[in-house]
Amino acid sequence: MSQSDEHPVLDQELLQWISREYYEMNGSHIEILDAPPTPIEFSRLIHISRPVVIKGLQIPASARWTNDYLVKKMGEHSISVAFTPNGLADAVTRDSDGKLYFTEPYTSQMTMQEFFDQLMKNPILYLQSQNGNLYSSAFYEQDGRDSSEFQSLRADVPSKHPDAVNLWIGDERSTTSIHSDPYENIYTVVQGSKHFTLLPPADGWCLQERNYPHATYTPSPLDSNLVLTPSSSKTPYVRWSSIADPHLPEALPPEVHPLSITLEAGDTLYLPVGWWHHVRQSGDITVAVNWWYDAEVQGSTWVWLNMLRARDVPLGNTGEDS
Amino acid sequence: MSQSDEHPVLDQELLQWISREYYEMNGSHIEILDAPPTPIEFSRLIHISRPVVIKGLQIPASARWTNDYLVKKMGEHSISVAFTPNGLADAVTRDSDGKLYFTEPYTSQMTMQEFFDQLMKNPILYLQSQNGNLYSSAFYEQDGRDSSEFQSLRADVPSKHPDAVNLWIGDERSTTSIHSDPYENIYTVVQGSKHFTLLPPADGWCLQERNYPHATYTPSPLDSNLVLTPSSSKTPYVRWSSIADPHLPEALPPEVHPLSITLEAGDTLYLPVGWWHHVRQSGDITVAVNWWYDAEVQGSTWVWLNMLRARDVPLGNTGEDS
Repeated sequence: MSQSDEHPVLDQELLQWISREYYEMNGSHIEILDAPPTPIEFSRLIHISRPVVIKGLQIPASARWTNDYLVKKMGEHSISVAFTPNGLADAVTRDSDGKLYFTEPYTSQMTMQEFFDQLMKNPILYLQSQNGNLYSSAFYEQDGRDSSEFQSLRADVPSKHPDAVNLWIGDERSTTSIHSDPYENIYTVVQGSKHFTLLPPADGWCLQERNYPHATYTPSPLDSNLVLTPSSSKTPYVRWSSIADPHLPEALPPEVHPLSITLEAGDTLYLPVGWWHHVRQSGDITVAVNWWYDAEVQGSTWVWLNMLRARDVPLGNTGEDS
Repeated sequence: MSQSDEHPVLDQELLQWISREYYEMNGSHIEILDAPPTPIEFSRLIHISRPVVIKGLQIPASARWTNDYLVKKMGEHSISVAFTPNGLADAVTRDSDGKLYFTEPYTSQMTMQEFFDQLMKNPILYLQSQNGNLYSSAFYEQDGRDSSEFQSLRADVPSKHPDAVNLWIGDERSTTSIHSDPYENIYTVVQGSKHFTLLPPADGWCLQERNYPHATYTPSPLDSNLVLTPSSSKTPYVRWSSIADPHLPEALPPEVHPLSITLEAGDTLYLPVGWWHHVRQSGDITVAVNWWYDAEVQGSTWVWLNMLRARDVPLGNTGEDS
């Protein structure tokens, strides 16, 4: 049968067994390093592939970046900013009819000054253009000739051949829904606090991934309120967790053990490939930078991660979801 | 059900899918390094967990060990030697009634001179006492105060906190049946050639592990021929592969892709934790040393290895095996 060739049978009992075994071997301890690891220590951390908080990683941005500095450095450069009515960019959201969509934010251009002026007001703005808004892999492949909206901030963020480097600025109303990335991730908070809720790849089965139709927020021509606007029916469905808030009681089954980590300014998180993360922030304005690195493709890491997600994903919006 | 708590359901389709995915990601390439890796390069090799042949790893033994040197250094020290009628120590073997046993060799003590005099004659001798015959972890835990039959050869074999270091000497009639170890393994050939046939942990399902009753070869009091002697019924059964020779046509299913590696004198193999290996040797006398290191227990490596072997193992000696 061709379908089962693509999606092997991982029954619920096996998935629960994997979660239990993983927890028995690893517990829910989070290592905190008082200083950045040496390259060989870091290599071992990648092999273990568990989150680690690293203190004392100094980058020029940590010392230099104030709101005034960012405004001055960026000047009249135009930057892409995400707009949502609810702080949920890239999240499963209900439209006025109660139907669920994977909804992307409205994106608009402005200066850094305009962005800071508008923050803390409505709608909710989040600088989260990601996919390498500071550096992308093209920077390294084309001898530095890629463009970035944040070119003038690059000197403050050193980087060694990452796949992408991203800048994130927002207020505490913006949250990031739980998801996992196919990258090794180094995440540094420059200002404010970030609150991560993490689950290992082994626990991903409990997040009830579903296929959701795609939508985007667009400003209404009448009052410029942001309206959830379904995309064309040709837009591919998006596989996403149905767990909107993993902190709600009974959102997660008892087999899984989420880790909670708060990063203050100056703290860095090593977030290993495939780990599920939900992110909140606090403090007036939170500024963070992250580096994504390609994960090791040789060996069994990808087989393990693919196996844990190998299943037929049902459509969202069924009776049980709505 | 308590049984399924211990042994999750990994159906054949899932196991075949894992083998195919692993092969698609990794192929059957074996990396050959012209020089020993740096510590950080080696750390990456451990993370990838695929076999690597390393050229140019020099240990004093490589230059010093001739048969005469070993005889002279060992003098009258007594060493433990394995005796079998067929070269199969620690292997599934049929007794005269056709019943299958996991059979251990007869072990006897002699000097190194006596061992070399007897090699190439009958019965088949193999110096393979393993479990740390050169160094065991006790050496490090007790400030070097553990005993070894090969104390006088230690200066020729440097070691950095391994779990065990073993010396192996035999002729081409001795083979090692296919099995896996819970250790990272560094294996150096000092004299002769070793031929490894390897399968990744993902392919272990095809080796048809069964539980076999235990037996030992003992010399007959009449003619001192070695006789397969079943152990007491209280001796635990031994879980072992039913594939006596993975090189026979149709011994393995088409989904799996064994790697073949020949190590000549001076070559070293990094054999990662959990990899299945069958070992033959050629040349009059083959001398090898290996270092076993504890594998990383944090992370998902053990969960992955445990999952791949998590099944109810039937008894051997059933109609289908005999």
